[in-house]
Amino acid sequence: MGNEAYIIKGHLCYSRDADTIEVVENGSLVVENGVCRGVFETVPARYAQLPVHDYGDRLVVPGMTDLHVHAPQFSFRGLGMDLELLEWLNTYTFPEESKYRELSYAERAYGSFADHLLHSTTTRACIFATIHVPATLLLMRKLDALGLCTYVGKVNMNRNSPDYLRETSTRQAIRDTELWLSQLEGLRHTRPILTPRFIPSCTDDLMYALHDLREQYSLPVQSHLSENLGEIAWVRELCPRAKFYGQAYDQFGLFGGDHKCIMAHCVHSDEREQELMLKNGVFIAHSPESNMNLASGVAPVNQFLERGLHVGLATDVAGGSHESMLRAMMHAIQASKLRWRLLDQTVAPLSFERAFYLATMGGGAFFGSVGTFREGWAADAVVLDDANLDHPQDLSVRARLERMTYLADERSIAAKYVEGRKIL
Amino acid sequence: MGNEAYIIKGHLCYSRDADTIEVVENGSLVVENGVCRGVFETVPARYAQLPVHDYGDRLVVPGMTDLHVHAPQFSFRGLGMDLELLEWLNTYTFPEESKYRELSYAERAYGSFADHLLHSTTTRACIFATIHVPATLLLMRKLDALGLCTYVGKVNMNRNSPDYLRETSTRQAIRDTELWLSQLEGLRHTRPILTPRFIPSCTDDLMYALHDLREQYSLPVQSHLSENLGEIAWVRELCPRAKFYGQAYDQFGLFGGDHKCIMAHCVHSDEREQELMLKNGVFIAHSPESNMNLASGVAPVNQFLERGLHVGLATDVAGGSHESMLRAMMHAIQASKLRWRLLDQTVAPLSFERAFYLATMGGGAFFGSVGTFREGWAADAVVLDDANLDHPQDLSVRARLERMTYLADERSIAAKYVEGRKIL
Repeated sequence: MGNEAYIIKGHLCYSRDADTIEVVENGSLVVENGVCRGVFETVPARYAQLPVHDYGDRLVVPGMTDLHVHAPQFSFRGLGMDLELLEWLNTYTFPEESKYRELSYAERAYGSFADHLLHSTTTRACIFATIHVPATLLLMRKLDALGLCTYVGKVNMNRNSPDYLRETSTRQAIRDTELWLSQLEGLRHTRPILTPRFIPSCTDDLMYALHDLREQYSLPVQSHLSENLGEIAWVRELCPRAKFYGQAYDQFGLFGGDHKCIMAHCVHSDEREQELMLKNGVFIAHSPESNMNLASGVAPVNQFLERGLHVGLATDVAGGSHESMLRAMMHAIQASKLRWRLLDQTVAPLSFERAFYLATMGGGAFFGSVGTFREGWAADAVVLDDANLDHPQDLSVRARLERMTYLADERSIAAKYVEGRKIL
Repeated sequence: MGNEAYIIKGHLCYSRDADTIEVVENGSLVVENGVCRGVFETVPARYAQLPVHDYGDRLVVPGMTDLHVHAPQFSFRGLGMDLELLEWLNTYTFPEESKYRELSYAERAYGSFADHLLHSTTTRACIFATIHVPATLLLMRKLDALGLCTYVGKVNMNRNSPDYLRETSTRQAIRDTELWLSQLEGLRHTRPILTPRFIPSCTDDLMYALHDLREQYSLPVQSHLSENLGEIAWVRELCPRAKFYGQAYDQFGLFGGDHKCIMAHCVHSDEREQELMLKNGVFIAHSPESNMNLASGVAPVNQFLERGLHVGLATDVAGGSHESMLRAMMHAIQASKLRWRLLDQTVAPLSFERAFYLATMGGGAFFGSVGTFREGWAADAVVLDDANLDHPQDLSVRARLERMTYLADERSIAAKYVEGRKIL
């Protein structure tokens, strides 16, 4: 953490709660030791001597958390959108992920991924790598060098995938995972997360062994849950003892409770599954574009929020086509409107305020006090410049923020801070 | 039309039919007198002397037709996405459109719109202006000067809108419309189209009077149809004689048949309405992003195609947030997947091929032989450069085209031809 103190000046926009965006025009965010000390319209005398990073007419928002993204799939983003999940994995995903056994390929592809992530609104991310230890370490070092705060998982999968992308036994899977965990020294901002791909990819004994590793190393867990109807039916066959998909993870001790846990998608999670996630504090990574592209459906995200579930937003590249969390906000709002119109009028569409909250505070909570400019919270901030988005009329700061959600791209990312460190 | 002959060289991608994209790598498109003379892998001897516009490794696709877009709403694209249609019109749209009574505002705002349209894949468009004659003429001249081929309509509306944006009587509406039509001399690529806003905005006698104008001037017609459930219920009250919304237009003689006609949306068109559109040759402007943003629903576009209806694609700015027809293709595919998943599995999701067809040939048909590189068809072409979209693996031309649909923006538009004229 940077231990210096300074002021970030601009039009500050940040969530107070899920339904309120605070806008402080020409506001000053005081940063000290990597955390926010307060937001001020007029800087108090005690801070008057601090250096000022003055961003003028630009917007300053909290850094965003991408709660679920596959780094090795970035190389085929925007491609192969014509299949549903299980066929899509076999046809596009597994062949591509197998290429990461070659470090030279990983160097090139992960370099591109990390560079795009740097030039996005994302300051924190929870990332799937592949089964390959050297490539996963390479990815972690690249991200660490850029200063982003991430959890990265070497993927575990030892069944129901081609020979060229499968751990050959539980013993080898655990050995590789421990080998990976033994080589993380020197990483400052990148942490490991256990990553069983999903139930169909992991034998029962691998899941139990991962549970033991989780306890031994005090690790969080990430996986996939209730994304697609075919997947859910398959899990029912594979785990006949479990009454629902989430309970299968729970039976293996990999579904939150005494450890942090993210489950991606939860498009079709029923009442029982939602109840268990609530009880266990499981985070839901809502991945709206991916859920559209793979024709999975739309999770009832407002229902999740109203029940008090932890929910964040995710790009899920390459189910999603883009690393932009602004686009993920757009897709979340759009998908929620179609869910409301076409399926279920008991769950209201997402407001802009809630989409912003999900992208910042919702996912940020997985990292602790992250995702807004509250005193004592991490100083993660992104400076947004919409000078290239012409408009003939005066726009409020709130309007400019909404507009950038639909129109901005990496050209609008003018600066970025993580834990007070200026990384862009 | 340019009367010179030349060759456009690059990776040519164009629809043969709704389900087939032809890809000719390093192909040569021969252009003469503004029309395509053929696509060749090897240039025949008779064309060997022609000058070559060599675009190397870039892709060359037919120009796209935006079949429905509101030029005056471009100024608030990406804003005010929290309301459904009728409230949205009153809250955001009508106040903004009223500003175009000031020519200085129109100059600034339409300048921005025209500039964005130029730097997009759009070569043809059917455009709503506002009720204001001078501003509509200004827009038409701007578009004409850029060389785009468009239909532009001065809007008619004389009821159910605020005083500040309403024609005060049928007489005044017709007088203004004739005044507008009398000042189109000198326009080479921009044509007028009658534009009653929609049934709720126009009294019966205005509609009958517009029918007479249409016959007198041999004009095409554009309007809105069956976009939103509240709108449809309102039309039922306003036109009790009509059995369905489309029949109301038809009773006024403004629903195709002996004239060209575009109806935007058709999200909720029932069997009878679809049958009448088929019989009358009405074009449907499918506007998927707008239909998401205003929570209208999703039109069954594959059903339309299979019935033989004329369908094109539209951005419908500012119900849609973006002028990009590539993004409209993305949204069309995504919306169709959610419609299939959430509402109705009898209508399959849109394939990439069909989305491309809709954006090129589907809408192009409104302008004649437009939208593919067939002999005798208009030489409308866009050169796409994806050099800034890095990828670590070799990609086929077909894959690059799909990827650009999700990832490209105006930076990828390297050159543009309309009727053989190079306009960018």
